[in-house]
Amino acid sequence: MTAEIWDVIIVGAGLSGLSAAHLLRKRNAKFKILVLEGKDRVGGRTVSAEIPAANGVDRWDFGGQWVGSTQTHILELIRELGLETYAQFNIGKKVHHMGGPGSKVRTYSTIIPALSLMGLMDMTQLLWKIDRLCATVCVQEPSMTPGAVELDSMTLQSYIEKQAWTTELKEEMGVCSRSVLGMEPSQMSFLFFLMYAAAAGGVMPLLESTPGCAQELKIKGGTQQLSQCLAEHVGLKNVRLGSAVTAIWQDAEWARVTTTTNTFLCRAVIVTCPPHLAAKIQYQPALPNQREFLTQNMPVGHMIKFILTYQTAFWREKGFSGEIVAGSSTGCPFCVTFDATSPSGNAALVGFIAGQQASQWSSKESGERREAVLSSLVKYLGPEAASFIHYEEKDWAKEEYSGGCPVNVMAPGLLTYYHPSLRKPCGRIHWAGTETATMWCGYMSGAVQAGQRASLEVLAELCPMNLTQEEQEAVQHNHTAKGGAKQTSKLRHLCTSKAVVIATLAISAAVLLAKKQNAMFKIKACVTNVFTATRHTTFGL
Amino acid sequence: MTAEIWDVIIVGAGLSGLSAAHLLRKRNAKFKILVLEGKDRVGGRTVSAEIPAANGVDRWDFGGQWVGSTQTHILELIRELGLETYAQFNIGKKVHHMGGPGSKVRTYSTIIPALSLMGLMDMTQLLWKIDRLCATVCVQEPSMTPGAVELDSMTLQSYIEKQAWTTELKEEMGVCSRSVLGMEPSQMSFLFFLMYAAAAGGVMPLLESTPGCAQELKIKGGTQQLSQCLAEHVGLKNVRLGSAVTAIWQDAEWARVTTTTNTFLCRAVIVTCPPHLAAKIQYQPALPNQREFLTQNMPVGHMIKFILTYQTAFWREKGFSGEIVAGSSTGCPFCVTFDATSPSGNAALVGFIAGQQASQWSSKESGERREAVLSSLVKYLGPEAASFIHYEEKDWAKEEYSGGCPVNVMAPGLLTYYHPSLRKPCGRIHWAGTETATMWCGYMSGAVQAGQRASLEVLAELCPMNLTQEEQEAVQHNHTAKGGAKQTSKLRHLCTSKAVVIATLAISAAVLLAKKQNAMFKIKACVTNVFTATRHTTFGL
Repeated sequence: MTAEIWDVIIVGAGLSGLSAAHLLRKRNAKFKILVLEGKDRVGGRTVSAEIPAANGVDRWDFGGQWVGSTQTHILELIRELGLETYAQFNIGKKVHHMGGPGSKVRTYSTIIPALSLMGLMDMTQLLWKIDRLCATVCVQEPSMTPGAVELDSMTLQSYIEKQAWTTELKEEMGVCSRSVLGMEPSQMSFLFFLMYAAAAGGVMPLLESTPGCAQELKIKGGTQQLSQCLAEHVGLKNVRLGSAVTAIWQDAEWARVTTTTNTFLCRAVIVTCPPHLAAKIQYQPALPNQREFLTQNMPVGHMIKFILTYQTAFWREKGFSGEIVAGSSTGCPFCVTFDATSPSGNAALVGFIAGQQASQWSSKESGERREAVLSSLVKYLGPEAASFIHYEEKDWAKEEYSGGCPVNVMAPGLLTYYHPSLRKPCGRIHWAGTETATMWCGYMSGAVQAGQRASLEVLAELCPMNLTQEEQEAVQHNHTAKGGAKQTSKLRHLCTSKAVVIATLAISAAVLLAKKQNAMFKIKACVTNVFTATRHTTFGL
Repeated sequence: MTAEIWDVIIVGAGLSGLSAAHLLRKRNAKFKILVLEGKDRVGGRTVSAEIPAANGVDRWDFGGQWVGSTQTHILELIRELGLETYAQFNIGKKVHHMGGPGSKVRTYSTIIPALSLMGLMDMTQLLWKIDRLCATVCVQEPSMTPGAVELDSMTLQSYIEKQAWTTELKEEMGVCSRSVLGMEPSQMSFLFFLMYAAAAGGVMPLLESTPGCAQELKIKGGTQQLSQCLAEHVGLKNVRLGSAVTAIWQDAEWARVTTTTNTFLCRAVIVTCPPHLAAKIQYQPALPNQREFLTQNMPVGHMIKFILTYQTAFWREKGFSGEIVAGSSTGCPFCVTFDATSPSGNAALVGFIAGQQASQWSSKESGERREAVLSSLVKYLGPEAASFIHYEEKDWAKEEYSGGCPVNVMAPGLLTYYHPSLRKPCGRIHWAGTETATMWCGYMSGAVQAGQRASLEVLAELCPMNLTQEEQEAVQHNHTAKGGAKQTSKLRHLCTSKAVVIATLAISAAVLLAKKQNAMFKIKACVTNVFTATRHTTFGL
């Protein structure tokens, strides 16, 4: 069997791999680039599918779906491919349920979660502390963060236990961890969480759907289109589906990439699959121990995403935004839902069962999960929730060549010891995938940034004249985009912390003044005003 | 290519795999058993080799070397194979160095580490607390331990930071973690550490070389003999070396086991390789997500073991035992050394560079490591240490089909969520290896126990009449050896905690009485007496 010869082989036809291929092709049209993908489709952790809806059928995203206006890499790609975005609907009452199944279901319309006054103050001080720490994180080299060893030796849960005063906030933070990372706060390093937030500009941008935040915008027609368009640009004949890579061997001259049926030779390889899958490939010579230790300790999150279509967005008519946040103690299987009505007006809700709840619910029958989801929706939004058109779900842990989503996290004691091997090339092998990004790591934008960074590394090796002087230097110093995320994060931090200090002081003053029960109203009004001021300062509105 | 047909295939010819094969063969001589091993030798994490010594050459263990008198599974095997044990030499002064490179090097001859009085009291209270928690751990089902979620949501380091008063003890605990598990305390779940200690009967049994402890006895001729003898019993033709398993596919009738060159069919498979290597095998159908999540989060330790041979055991002549314990702040590359003089009298020292220090030193030249080791030995034992005959080392992270040692630990948030999948068979696949043991998990004895447990599972499937009624019930309830470890641990705990409380009280009383500087001698004497009493109570001497 003679092996086919290519210039560059890319492992994985997700956003990172195809962005890498696209940039390589743009820089050097003569490059022979092959993308190998285990799945029978492109898109990786993005997949869009049609399901029955009010007006026949419509298309929804069952993987990554949101982008935000500070996610420069993905926005640039969206523009280049001629796609359009639209805003996440977030007007109306939000539902908030914590503190056990029998506890009161609260609603709120402002940007302040429906926590008790004590809970709100607690949240303010905790987020302030975390944001202050975020601003000190060196995303590019987390081990250079002041106090890195200490921050990395504890879990996010240990930090919460130490710093949060109320059980209410502790449960709230569990929901945050689950809905952002598909993981419990006990399963990740606190320094990793800080780095992840810093790469997004702070903690609030991870959680919100307001401008600049992670849930701000959606893509008309779905996010999988990005990969489909990229694959067309790269050339469909250069993207081989159903071709999982099992081995990568390197010698002085070639990298030899093996699938179950073929062997290919090339000059450079870009591995874009998530770390736990990259760890399953057989490498010869063996990868450095540091790299092996790293991938042994980067578990992937677990999310089951569901879409429910309806005749009408009844929740909007009732004044709800469709956003529900529920703690795991409530018995509700999902941690969060949002309005998912399509641009053409087909009413829908989207929700996530995540983290430990995903593990528990994953082994049950689909019907049982659906009933539990519906029962909670009826409880929170009313009996109309039961009359859906279609329920469709995707358990990402069961998706072959994914095994989980949205992202691999890092367990404690990893960033300080083995992190340098995350992006460090191993001979002809370069590493991409959103986990290796320094801006919006874990998001689609991070996937694009990482793919582009890896392709610049490859060009620097194979064809340095295709790079600008600046790019060459960036690759040489492994400083592509360095500082960007950190500066953004610092900027945010300064605004947020200042405003939050004012908020905390104002709330505390109000509490001290409120000696009578009927003063409560004034306090809440005060809190609302201060929080609105905070948000405006933070996001420059 | 037609596939060979076997009854049982065992992946890995270490102690666990060969113990499984041996038991299967003893129970049913007709069984066709094949053991497949990636390495070119049997023994897994045990390997014995000859190196130059005072009287020509002699043999030392470069992997697992110690057994203890409470390790019933390995002791039984040693007896059965007709091998002999001898005691670890531990008479004389021990060297203890913590608190930075310039700090005083202390020596001590009692069983009490050379800590300050404050450090000693701190250690007493911390070990007492940990031992109390150990006694509550359910080794078989750690999630049933009272407060499991909380204990599993923090790292060992977080617990130490919270409960230890002195920096001295914090450094000491780092040495313990490194020398026992090849891992920093920041990298493992506290509940995992408790479970690991409970499976050994407590924390002290992990650390000491006294009766009942992990470093008590050695095997004449080396530990690899165990596997070599077992392989002979199983039949050398049934053990294929250089045969790394790459895939295990199952259908209704068969398990199909693939190596790079062959395919085999069988009725049952026992996978004994460490979890991070078992995770690299391709499984069809895919393993349950719980199992995948588990193996994504069980990093293996890192140890570099060295042996230095000498003309004479000069340290003994100078009154030293050969035991040195050094904190990472001292600049000493190793964390611990012991006397390793062979039964035939060839003088030697054995030492370990472990955890983060192993990672740092692993990438340097062998000569540089040797010089650093020698320089520390000279500092601690005198200039005679420089005149060695031979220096030999083994970096287990660089050993193919090991990638680390001594054992895989569990990161936080794992035991409470995914632990049940550690031993749960997946169709025809059964799991062994020391990581799956419930008594002396992580040790050679655990490897034997796990292999035997897995082989009973296979017999229960294929040939239940080969099992006793009791064994059948044990397999059915997955309760083999259940309670044993826990009871032992409880027993130990009761003795230890009682004695330690007396010790703490006595020390405190002594401190209160000691108002003059010259009372220090009395305090130390008192501490010595109480600690000796503690040890005697604990180990029933």
